[in-house]
Amino acid sequence: MEKMILNGEIRNRSEIKVEIEDRGYQFGDGVYEVIRIYNGKLFTSEMHLARLIESAKKINITIPYTIEEIEVKLKELIAENAITFGTVYMQFTRGVSPRNHAFPSTDVAPVYVAYTKEVPYSGVLKPGAKAITVEDIRWLRCDIKSLNLLGNILAKQKAAEAGCFEAIQHRCGTVTEGSSSNVSIVVNGELKTHPATNLILNGITRQVMIKICKDLGISYKEDDFTLEELLAAEEVIMTSTTAEITPITEIDGQAIGNGESGTVTRQLQQAFHAEIERQCGHISESIVK
Amino acid sequence: MEKMILNGEIRNRSEIKVEIEDRGYQFGDGVYEVIRIYNGKLFTSEMHLARLIESAKKINITIPYTIEEIEVKLKELIAENAITFGTVYMQFTRGVSPRNHAFPSTDVAPVYVAYTKEVPYSGVLKPGAKAITVEDIRWLRCDIKSLNLLGNILAKQKAAEAGCFEAIQHRCGTVTEGSSSNVSIVVNGELKTHPATNLILNGITRQVMIKICKDLGISYKEDDFTLEELLAAEEVIMTSTTAEITPITEIDGQAIGNGESGTVTRQLQQAFHAEIERQCGHISESIVK
Repeated sequence: MEKMILNGEIRNRSEIKVEIEDRGYQFGDGVYEVIRIYNGKLFTSEMHLARLIESAKKINITIPYTIEEIEVKLKELIAENAITFGTVYMQFTRGVSPRNHAFPSTDVAPVYVAYTKEVPYSGVLKPGAKAITVEDIRWLRCDIKSLNLLGNILAKQKAAEAGCFEAIQHRCGTVTEGSSSNVSIVVNGELKTHPATNLILNGITRQVMIKICKDLGISYKEDDFTLEELLAAEEVIMTSTTAEITPITEIDGQAIGNGESGTVTRQLQQAFHAEIERQCGHISESIVK
Repeated sequence: MEKMILNGEIRNRSEIKVEIEDRGYQFGDGVYEVIRIYNGKLFTSEMHLARLIESAKKINITIPYTIEEIEVKLKELIAENAITFGTVYMQFTRGVSPRNHAFPSTDVAPVYVAYTKEVPYSGVLKPGAKAITVEDIRWLRCDIKSLNLLGNILAKQKAAEAGCFEAIQHRCGTVTEGSSSNVSIVVNGELKTHPATNLILNGITRQVMIKICKDLGISYKEDDFTLEELLAAEEVIMTSTTAEITPITEIDGQAIGNGESGTVTRQLQQAFHAEIERQCGHISESIVK
């Protein structure tokens, strides 16, 4: 029977429901994370959980657990559900209280749910994805990984309807990020990615990618870029927990570079795979989907 | 036993919970309305329900009921819960589906919940409220009455912490609206209120107020105004379903006009009360809280 975490306890998933007046349901008043599982082990979980606590703090939700306490339970959950390759989704809302915009009194406890999903590992090098560009209409605190995702959803849906995987958002021509990923470009061999301001989510895969650039001596710059630079780039790279490091090879129907994955992308992918194996152990080629 | 509506059926409230993978809970992917009840009767319900259907349409949710069907059930609910003065809160989410940003297939049905709350009628003339001003950080589709309310919540909370009722939002010095209300000013006897663009919610009370202006020959203009104009106004008026027509008499610690409710505000309040009585019947003075 599939298990879930509710407020720190492992329970049967089928038993778990939420209250109508959970502030997550009425206001999107909460934060979330998605963490990857490879070989039954959590990948970059400390970075995800630190960001979770940080996101919560930015909207004045206090997570009543330490990173270690959360990790211990997540590991139990992964074992109970026997997940080898997959993700864990987790969210904390401000809690259950009669509907009112202002925060409830401090004795209202956050509601914490977490569950797992099987997701196969798609291998080191991924096929190129297609994207469209759309106006970024989201709020000005995209640095908070909150449950207010309507802007992201509407962008992603536009991409889906255009037969594409991702929608690359821009504010007045300046690229911010994808609807569920960060976006970087390679120009003259140098990687460029939007700085971690209030306009983007500071992706964990983005952070790992930057560390790889440093380690491998790949030139990089945290700087914003325009739609024109995006379309003229040698390579365009999408990073996210679920997409890992994926080349974007077509945008708005136009090929990027020669329309194939580039050398910097491949270098990053290989180093990212090595980082997965360093944290989670060797991945046999036979399991790659 | 308190009743609620779940997907069009009246049920015991205590039985009703929602699923973790309701898109309302994970994305704030839904729309809502709050309708006032006076004398056991719904006020301006047709306008609210038309806006509900319109909001849903803007994010591609199809409400599977007509306005009349929704109204019939709401009336039943009000009778069952024996509400004389109060509100009904209702929301539709896109439905329950495994978490994924893009919309689920069209056979996923919206989840509809509605419940009532007792709220006393606070009388024709209301005491002045205090407000602060804050930067409007919300997304660019504030015309949709969606469940993505984190920007509104954070603004309202700032007001509460400053001992005020409302936070008046502005974009680069241009006033948009309150965190849960529309805001209008009176300058040289003329009422000015932000036009119903993508930057504000076109409040039902705002619409009734404009109709009153037309009917009574009060000069009005749908035009935006600056923070300077706000603070220098003769009167500042907040309108919402729960606040009705309320004067804002102090902003950022500074008195508006002479610090008391003004003549245009009182004129509007009296006409608004008359409209309530026209739709819902005479309200005895003895019941005013």
